[in-house]
Amino acid sequence: MNTKIDKVENGTVTTPDGFQAGAIYAGINKKGKTGLDMGILFSTAPCNTAGVFTKNRIKAAPVILSQERLKLGKAAAVVANSGCANACVGKQGMADAKEISRLAAENLGIAADDVLVASTGVIGQPLPMELVRPSIPLIKVSKEGGHNFARAIMTTDKVEKEIAVRVKAGRNTFYIGGAAKGAGMIHPDMATMLCFLTTDAEVDLEFLRESLRKAADVSFNMISVDGDTSTNDTVLLMANGQSENDPITPGDIQYAKVFQEALNQVCIYLAKAVARDGEGATKLIEVTVSGAATEAEAKQAARTVVSSSLVKTAIYGNDPNWGRVIAAIGRSGIAVEENKVTIYLGNICVFKSGQPQNFNLEKAGAALNKANVPIDIKLNMGDGEATAWGSDLTEEYIKINAEYTT
Amino acid sequence: MNTKIDKVENGTVTTPDGFQAGAIYAGINKKGKTGLDMGILFSTAPCNTAGVFTKNRIKAAPVILSQERLKLGKAAAVVANSGCANACVGKQGMADAKEISRLAAENLGIAADDVLVASTGVIGQPLPMELVRPSIPLIKVSKEGGHNFARAIMTTDKVEKEIAVRVKAGRNTFYIGGAAKGAGMIHPDMATMLCFLTTDAEVDLEFLRESLRKAADVSFNMISVDGDTSTNDTVLLMANGQSENDPITPGDIQYAKVFQEALNQVCIYLAKAVARDGEGATKLIEVTVSGAATEAEAKQAARTVVSSSLVKTAIYGNDPNWGRVIAAIGRSGIAVEENKVTIYLGNICVFKSGQPQNFNLEKAGAALNKANVPIDIKLNMGDGEATAWGSDLTEEYIKINAEYTT
Repeated sequence: MNTKIDKVENGTVTTPDGFQAGAIYAGINKKGKTGLDMGILFSTAPCNTAGVFTKNRIKAAPVILSQERLKLGKAAAVVANSGCANACVGKQGMADAKEISRLAAENLGIAADDVLVASTGVIGQPLPMELVRPSIPLIKVSKEGGHNFARAIMTTDKVEKEIAVRVKAGRNTFYIGGAAKGAGMIHPDMATMLCFLTTDAEVDLEFLRESLRKAADVSFNMISVDGDTSTNDTVLLMANGQSENDPITPGDIQYAKVFQEALNQVCIYLAKAVARDGEGATKLIEVTVSGAATEAEAKQAARTVVSSSLVKTAIYGNDPNWGRVIAAIGRSGIAVEENKVTIYLGNICVFKSGQPQNFNLEKAGAALNKANVPIDIKLNMGDGEATAWGSDLTEEYIKINAEYTT
Repeated sequence: MNTKIDKVENGTVTTPDGFQAGAIYAGINKKGKTGLDMGILFSTAPCNTAGVFTKNRIKAAPVILSQERLKLGKAAAVVANSGCANACVGKQGMADAKEISRLAAENLGIAADDVLVASTGVIGQPLPMELVRPSIPLIKVSKEGGHNFARAIMTTDKVEKEIAVRVKAGRNTFYIGGAAKGAGMIHPDMATMLCFLTTDAEVDLEFLRESLRKAADVSFNMISVDGDTSTNDTVLLMANGQSENDPITPGDIQYAKVFQEALNQVCIYLAKAVARDGEGATKLIEVTVSGAATEAEAKQAARTVVSSSLVKTAIYGNDPNWGRVIAAIGRSGIAVEENKVTIYLGNICVFKSGQPQNFNLEKAGAALNKANVPIDIKLNMGDGEATAWGSDLTEEYIKINAEYTT
C-alpha cells in the first residue's frame, strides 16, 4: 500500500471533515492574553472517542466526568476552558462540570452524555458559573473555529499549538488534527496538558484506544517542564468516520500502521510544541537514550535526564556540564555501566566509553546556544531506545510561578 | 535511666574525645570562599565505622573505595576535598583516591586501609594531583581543627554546618559531633552531601550501622534541594570508644535508645542546615504529612511535596497556592482521598476535609514570608507520619547552576 503523510498548511482541529469549533471570552481567565477562555469542539457525526487522563490520584471533576462518559467510547463534543482547573473544590466541581456539559449540549442540540469536559488553570477555586452560564449558549461553532478553540485553552502558553496532517493510504485519504495547551505542571504520565485530537477516519474503537495509548507513550508521556503532574491532564481523540474511507481496524496491518504513524507524528509535534513553550523556556532539549537494556529503561533514563533541574539549568547557561547528565542517568535506576557510557551534548562527544573527552569549551558552549539542543546518550547495554523532550529552566520560570495566583 | 541531650556551644566534629582534624588550601576549589579545600579527620584510636552512600548507580571513585574499606567496619581517618568530585574520570579516579589515602596514612602514621576518602565538586574532571600530592603531608591535625575541616568541604555552601551534643545516660557521658556540606544536587536517598559524624562512645558495630541507617532515614534522606541525587554522597559515623563508658549495644535498650535519639538530633540538625542553605534558598520549608496509611507513604508524600518545583516557587513568592500541594500529594502515588485531606500552609488552614477554606490572602502571604515555612498535611487514612525539609526555588538557584563549570 502506498502511504504518504503530509502536514496541512494552517491545519487545526477542524481540518478533518465534520468537525467544527468555536470560542468565547467568558471572563474566567483574567490573565488570558488571547481574549478567549472557553471553547467547544463539535463533530456533526457521533465519534468513536478514546481518552488518556492524568495518573494523579487527585483528579479534577471534568476528568472524572469525562472518564465516566468515555466508558462506551462515544462522544460528539468537548467543552474546554482555561483560567480555572475546577479541581479540589468539593462537590460543587462535579455539579458545575455537569451543568457545563448540559448547557453545551443544549447549544449543539445533542445529549449531555455525548459532551466531554476539560478545564485548566488554578486548582482549588470554583468555576465562576455566573460568567460561564450566560457564555456557553453564545458560542458559535463553525469549520473556521479551530484556531480560536486552540487559543481559548491557553494559560501561560505563549503560542497556540495546533496541527493537522493529510494521510494517503492506498485509495483512502483522511485527516488527523490536534490542538494542545501546556506551559507548566508538565511531566511524564501526562502534563498539565489538554490535547484534543480529531480525525475523519473511521476507526475501530478498541484500535482507537490502543493507538492513542501508544501515541501518548512516545509523545505526551515523554515531555517534562517541571516534574509536576497535574490534576487535569486530558488527551482526547475523536474519530467521526466522515472521510467515508475503509474503516481502520487492527486486522488491516498496513492501513492501521500508517494511522498509528500519522497519529504519533501529530502527538509528537504537539508534545514538542508544549515542551518548547514550557514556562520561561528558551530552548527545547531533546534527550535520546539508545543501547539501554530495554525500551522501558531507555524511557526511564531519557525522562530522568530531561527532568533534571541541574541539566536544565546547565543547558540554559550554555554550560557543557555533562557530569550532571551522567549523574541523572545513574540515579534513574536503570542498568548502567560507567565504562560503556558515551554522551554527546549538542552533537559534541564529551564522554566516550567511560572516559571524559577533550573538547573545546567555547565550541561546546556555542553548540548549546541554540533553540534545539540534542543530548545523545549511548549506554551499550542492549537495544532499548527512547527520546524525551523538555525545556531549560530559567529565572523566568521562577518569576512566572512565584506569582501565579496572587 | 536518667538521660539528657545538650547541644555543645561551638561544637564540631572534634568535640568527642580522641578526634583531631586539620585542613589546607591545595588549590582544587578555585571558587572556594573559605580558603580551604582539603581536610583530614583523624581518631587517635581505631573506630568502629558505619557509612551510608549514594544510591546513584554511577558512583565516584572515593565512594567505591570507602565502601570497600568499610566492609569490616573499621577506620581511623577520612580525607575529604571540595572542588572536584573525582567521579566519571575513568581508571584514574580510583588510582588517585588510593594515592590520597596512602599520603594521608603516611602523614598520620597509620595504614592506608584505615583511611576513607570523600570528594565533592565538579563531576568528570580528574583531581589535580600535582596540587594534591604536596598538600596532604602539610595538613596538621589537632583538637582545634574541627571548624577548619567543616570549612574545607564547603562548595557553594554559604555557611559551615557543624554541631556537637553531650549525652548523659545514667553514669555515662559521651559526645556526638558532626560536620556536613550540601548546597546543590540535594535529594532524598542521599544528597550531594558529605557528612562526617564522630562519637567517643564505644558502640557495637552492627548497632552502629543500624543506628546510622535509621538516623539517615529521618534526616538526610528526607531533604531535597533540587531532585538531583549525586554520585558522591557519603555519610560516615566513626565511634572510637574513648569516653570509656559502658559499650552501647542493642541489648541495653534504654542506653541504645538515647544514643539513637542523640544521633537523630545531630543528623536532623545537619540535614535541616543543608536544606536551609540550598543553592539560592531564602527559606527552609518543613513538610509534615500525618495520617498516611503507612509511615512509608507519609515519607513518600512529604518528599514529593518538598521536591515540587511549583510548591517551592510558590513558597518563594509568598503565594498560598495550596492547589500545588494537593496536586503533588496526588501524584506521589500514595493512597489519598480528596475529601479527607486537610492542609495548613504556614499554620493557616487553607483546605479542610476536601473543601477550600476562606482565608485572608494578605495574612496567608505574610505567614509564608518567613525564614521557616511549615506545610502540614493531614490525610486521615491511618497513622503514618513523616517530615521532610527543603528549600524554596529562586532565580538565584538558576544563576548559580547556569554557570557552574564554565
